[in-house]
Amino acid sequence: MITLNLSLPDTSYPIHIGQHILGNAELLLPYLKQKKAVIISNTTVAPLYLAPLKAALEQHGVSILTVTLPDGEDFKTWETLNLIFDALLNNKCERSTTLIALGGGVIGDMVGFAAACYQRGVPFIQVPTTLLSQVDSSVGGKTAINHPQGKNMIGAFYQPKVVIADMMLLDTLPERELSAGLAEVIKYGLLGDAGFISWLEEHMAALRAKDKTVLAEAVRRCCAMKADIVSQDERESGVRALLNLGHTFGHAIEAGLGFGTWLHGEAVAGGMMLAAEASRQLGYLNDSDVSRIEALLHAAGLPTVSPNLGYEAWLEHMSHDKKVSDGAIRFVLMRELGHAIVAALPEPVLHATLHSRFIAK
Amino acid sequence: MITLNLSLPDTSYPIHIGQHILGNAELLLPYLKQKKAVIISNTTVAPLYLAPLKAALEQHGVSILTVTLPDGEDFKTWETLNLIFDALLNNKCERSTTLIALGGGVIGDMVGFAAACYQRGVPFIQVPTTLLSQVDSSVGGKTAINHPQGKNMIGAFYQPKVVIADMMLLDTLPERELSAGLAEVIKYGLLGDAGFISWLEEHMAALRAKDKTVLAEAVRRCCAMKADIVSQDERESGVRALLNLGHTFGHAIEAGLGFGTWLHGEAVAGGMMLAAEASRQLGYLNDSDVSRIEALLHAAGLPTVSPNLGYEAWLEHMSHDKKVSDGAIRFVLMRELGHAIVAALPEPVLHATLHSRFIAK
Repeated sequence: MITLNLSLPDTSYPIHIGQHILGNAELLLPYLKQKKAVIISNTTVAPLYLAPLKAALEQHGVSILTVTLPDGEDFKTWETLNLIFDALLNNKCERSTTLIALGGGVIGDMVGFAAACYQRGVPFIQVPTTLLSQVDSSVGGKTAINHPQGKNMIGAFYQPKVVIADMMLLDTLPERELSAGLAEVIKYGLLGDAGFISWLEEHMAALRAKDKTVLAEAVRRCCAMKADIVSQDERESGVRALLNLGHTFGHAIEAGLGFGTWLHGEAVAGGMMLAAEASRQLGYLNDSDVSRIEALLHAAGLPTVSPNLGYEAWLEHMSHDKKVSDGAIRFVLMRELGHAIVAALPEPVLHATLHSRFIAK
Repeated sequence: MITLNLSLPDTSYPIHIGQHILGNAELLLPYLKQKKAVIISNTTVAPLYLAPLKAALEQHGVSILTVTLPDGEDFKTWETLNLIFDALLNNKCERSTTLIALGGGVIGDMVGFAAACYQRGVPFIQVPTTLLSQVDSSVGGKTAINHPQGKNMIGAFYQPKVVIADMMLLDTLPERELSAGLAEVIKYGLLGDAGFISWLEEHMAALRAKDKTVLAEAVRRCCAMKADIVSQDERESGVRALLNLGHTFGHAIEAGLGFGTWLHGEAVAGGMMLAAEASRQLGYLNDSDVSRIEALLHAAGLPTVSPNLGYEAWLEHMSHDKKVSDGAIRFVLMRELGHAIVAALPEPVLHATLHSRFIAK
């Protein structure tokens, strides 16, 4: 097991990465203020991993309440969040009751937001069960639900007490979900570490074959980069925005097709391809850089051609992006491979990008 | 105009108290990150005070969006909160758009919570229009909505950028609402300043006659106490709980009768009377202390006898209180007049209190 630490001005927490650590209650016990915890999962993950986690904690005398939510991005809504609040109130959960998120990014984001709001804040723990949530969403304290007009529009910055990333849980992860997680993994290379791009090209087959040692190394590198960036800029007033590479286009795909049609990681892959194309048009990347990104996404089993939402619909969806400032959409682009920047796009470049070969005809 | 300052580890903000300061845009302009703001009010307050505030800001080139919500505690719900989010998204409000809460405690709590959650946090300003919100809820950053099972159960600690308390706005405040505000004013005396109790006995007639100078002095003293307490304990892990004197019983009254039946201040008055009676039974207060509190609440036009919810219903409603810890309800009591403490109540004392003359037969 490897342990990273995320340090912030007023808190700091460990990220444990390893194999067979789900049942290691010792990793969680220091963060339970009382001998009571609520494990919140979904209908897909709960049958697989709820029992061992629950049993491990109960062996240490922790009384466990469980809440099982419907699975999927289209349930990342206020209505589902209220199922959590109802359960907490029906069971008289207190300010010192710890919530445990057992699931992927949707569960982690919702449980984190529920923890941020319930009685104005209770402790919570992230136990991410997908590659995507292990490398990205479980770390850094961004929590949210979707609004019909935009992804993650209602939320909070609220940090977990500890993150437990167990590679063994990826054994049951469907191939499509694994690929979606690899989109965020590739993102880290593209935005900040050209050497990691080469490493990924070399290890993509092992990653897709779920080699646990290789997966753990990928998760470690991503979490280390994320911890470094978040510790510099918790509230995304600067450098943290770079973690949104591919996300402005990607969120438009998700909203435009309806949440859940494309997986978040698939939409990010399409979005990174468009960000690469825009960067090429600005002269930042050359043709071979773009082809290399395209090949890496393909190798990861990801789409590189985004759906044709129509130019006006693209603009409308992107106008709700949280990076919009004084009416201008701001994009994360690549100044070169492994070096992202935030910039506005001249309208002709945006137009050409959204009519390029990376948009479905 | 008097200006107090509330200092916290990572922020600090001014509380301006005066007459005819609503239209002084200079007090707000430093806190608008962009020349755009959203004034959120209700159907009662908007016709009275929205136009002058809007005009003052527009004169300085600020573009103003307005949102008018239904009025009342029973609208302090997720559904109403969503009306704010819908308006913000429909108008493409950004992370740097400032929200201005123009109204009483319900508006302030809801707009503050909307500001805490919209895009994970936008700036907001409190312009309280009731005595209750001027002396209490607009200061200190507690924001929330109600859940059917409990008041203020879903919320955030989120501080405003500035508070503008204009005494002139109290001219249109109905007598019943003024009295409700006086309940929170009296609370400050009972919990921490015996001298203020005497001052209130002396000035109650002037307060109820809306003498602006006397009102401003009461608001100043309350805000100074609140700023002092909140600066010591923003997240209510200790001394801040004393500000909940009367609120554990009071919230049960509000929930038990249905939110909005008794005004919050009325419920707090009933709750403080019960806290006084429990304190007397513990030997902390004597009969004449209790009579003095009763007389002061009467003089303020407040109820001193709480509705008979039934003992089991009292316990059930109070079991959801945010101060519950390890299953035990914790009460704010008076060790002596002007000195509150937090303690559990022995069951026989609680039983006797809830069967005393301060409960309706």
